[in-house]
Amino acid sequence: MNKRKGRQTVFFEVPPIIRATGTVAGKKEGEGPIGKCFDFVTDDALFNEKTWEKAESKFVKTAVSAAIKNANLEPEDIDYLLGGDLINQCTGTTYGIRDFAIPYFGLYGACSTMALSLSLASICIDGGFAKRCAAVTSSHFCSAEKQFRFPLEYGGQRPPSAQWTVTGSACAILEQGGTLKEGVKIEGITTGKIIDKGITDANSMGAAMAPAAADTLITHFKETGRKPSDYDIILSGDLGKVGKSIVIDMVGEAGYDLSQNYNDCGLIIFDGESQDTHSGGSGCACAGLTFCGYIYKLLKEKNIENVLFMATGALQSTLAIQQGESIPGIAHALSIHA
Amino acid sequence: MNKRKGRQTVFFEVPPIIRATGTVAGKKEGEGPIGKCFDFVTDDALFNEKTWEKAESKFVKTAVSAAIKNANLEPEDIDYLLGGDLINQCTGTTYGIRDFAIPYFGLYGACSTMALSLSLASICIDGGFAKRCAAVTSSHFCSAEKQFRFPLEYGGQRPPSAQWTVTGSACAILEQGGTLKEGVKIEGITTGKIIDKGITDANSMGAAMAPAAADTLITHFKETGRKPSDYDIILSGDLGKVGKSIVIDMVGEAGYDLSQNYNDCGLIIFDGESQDTHSGGSGCACAGLTFCGYIYKLLKEKNIENVLFMATGALQSTLAIQQGESIPGIAHALSIHA
Repeated sequence: MNKRKGRQTVFFEVPPIIRATGTVAGKKEGEGPIGKCFDFVTDDALFNEKTWEKAESKFVKTAVSAAIKNANLEPEDIDYLLGGDLINQCTGTTYGIRDFAIPYFGLYGACSTMALSLSLASICIDGGFAKRCAAVTSSHFCSAEKQFRFPLEYGGQRPPSAQWTVTGSACAILEQGGTLKEGVKIEGITTGKIIDKGITDANSMGAAMAPAAADTLITHFKETGRKPSDYDIILSGDLGKVGKSIVIDMVGEAGYDLSQNYNDCGLIIFDGESQDTHSGGSGCACAGLTFCGYIYKLLKEKNIENVLFMATGALQSTLAIQQGESIPGIAHALSIHA
Repeated sequence: MNKRKGRQTVFFEVPPIIRATGTVAGKKEGEGPIGKCFDFVTDDALFNEKTWEKAESKFVKTAVSAAIKNANLEPEDIDYLLGGDLINQCTGTTYGIRDFAIPYFGLYGACSTMALSLSLASICIDGGFAKRCAAVTSSHFCSAEKQFRFPLEYGGQRPPSAQWTVTGSACAILEQGGTLKEGVKIEGITTGKIIDKGITDANSMGAAMAPAAADTLITHFKETGRKPSDYDIILSGDLGKVGKSIVIDMVGEAGYDLSQNYNDCGLIIFDGESQDTHSGGSGCACAGLTFCGYIYKLLKEKNIENVLFMATGALQSTLAIQQGESIPGIAHALSIHA
């Protein structure tokens, strides 16, 4: 157990390398501040399909294909594919990856899925069970609004705390370390536990997930003996403006100053002012696209040296909320180095 | 990569040990042929809760608590909990494990979840990332019927190919091998890929999953060089009568005779004749309870020496079926020795 730094943190013996990523985004994401970073942007939210759910699956299929192609590989070179999404029974992922015939570990971590899939892919690789893994996730504004809130046609008002589900899919190809001298390396992971502070408002996801995010960050700093300034960037997945400020306060109270280098993917992928996204972006693809499309490239081009990337998930269902349950949050973090 | 036996099969260097299991079942399961094997049986399908979903979460909580207690451990002794279920956003698992504060990897594999969680837990342990993991899953007849088919009050007719979702939850505690001389060991895993042969009938899940089950079994025999008679028992998760006969045919055509020692958990947990369960049991807890409650004890007491345990999942959502999609299947197998 010498890989263990504490209850929630493990470091890898031979840090797995992110060999390539593949990203596909919707129109609004393409028009945002990092829109130029994605492999594909489509203006058609239906992506030439008949339903939002089929479109989301096509986003997944396109992102996985792009990642494999960007890595100069074929599907049969990938030992395991790990992924999931927000839609009931992970429909986007299942139908999106159906044709690749890659051994598949299905995951459910809501918007934490990019970090969840990267974490387990790293474990499979550093543990010696796989040479290469694909980690994938997706979300779609229309399929998510329909499932979690209101039909789009209803035209429901969105309060300022509401976030905007990102449309797109992101996939990363991880490879055994040591085969390449250079590369973006996954040094270690801090795996979250479920934290539920009693929030019941599905229009305030950032607040629901913030305590889990703060818990994972504080745990990471304690277990590694690091401080926030040891990272060039600390990122949360989709807490938005509201959740971000709660995290800064909670982590600050524990003695760690996040004011200098912490941001949220939901505030990077959209320009809240000009794009009317209220508290910011959300959805599995928010952390997925921001990491795989933008942050990964900053690391690869050595514009930054290291990142603490944490995707955050609200593990709630509409049915549980209707039955009076609160929203359980979770956050998984990865320390990633250039 | 010397742990690899082929594209889908890996064997563990130090096979993880199943230290204990915990099982909680509903009334019908308690009255079935293996009803005496479960830790708890409740006559109350609501388990003293207000909704089926809250009841399912309580089943999960009770099974995890029982497993940890049966292992003479505390929740803080468990490094990772891995689990999931059938209900939208894995509600049963999320709310069931919320209070344990164990680092959590959420999974989605539908009824394949018992094998999926055991597989990834074994990887975490043999890879050196965890000393102990808990693998858990659940299903509930009422929450599943309501979500996937019809409201119970509707009293829909069930065709002979239909199966009966098992009510209950099962949890296994896995531990690093080598610390105990004796024990039930997970020797290796064969991880499934998604197989979809175009079945669209939600009342014929066994047929939808059978091709994936056959594919995983044939792959396991090819990659290990073994034959069916090398195992005392070969088990599928919840194919029922219909799916079982398809698997025997498909695997037979590939040259492997399953007629002697192959059975399906759905035909073990219920007596189809007297319990009116048509094609047999189904649901995540079907494979979960049959393995953790019955087969594990046969192994532990050395009544049998080895098992090829394969849980089978139909990764479909009602929405996808309504949109004309077929049902993708997956099957994950584990070779388990006394």
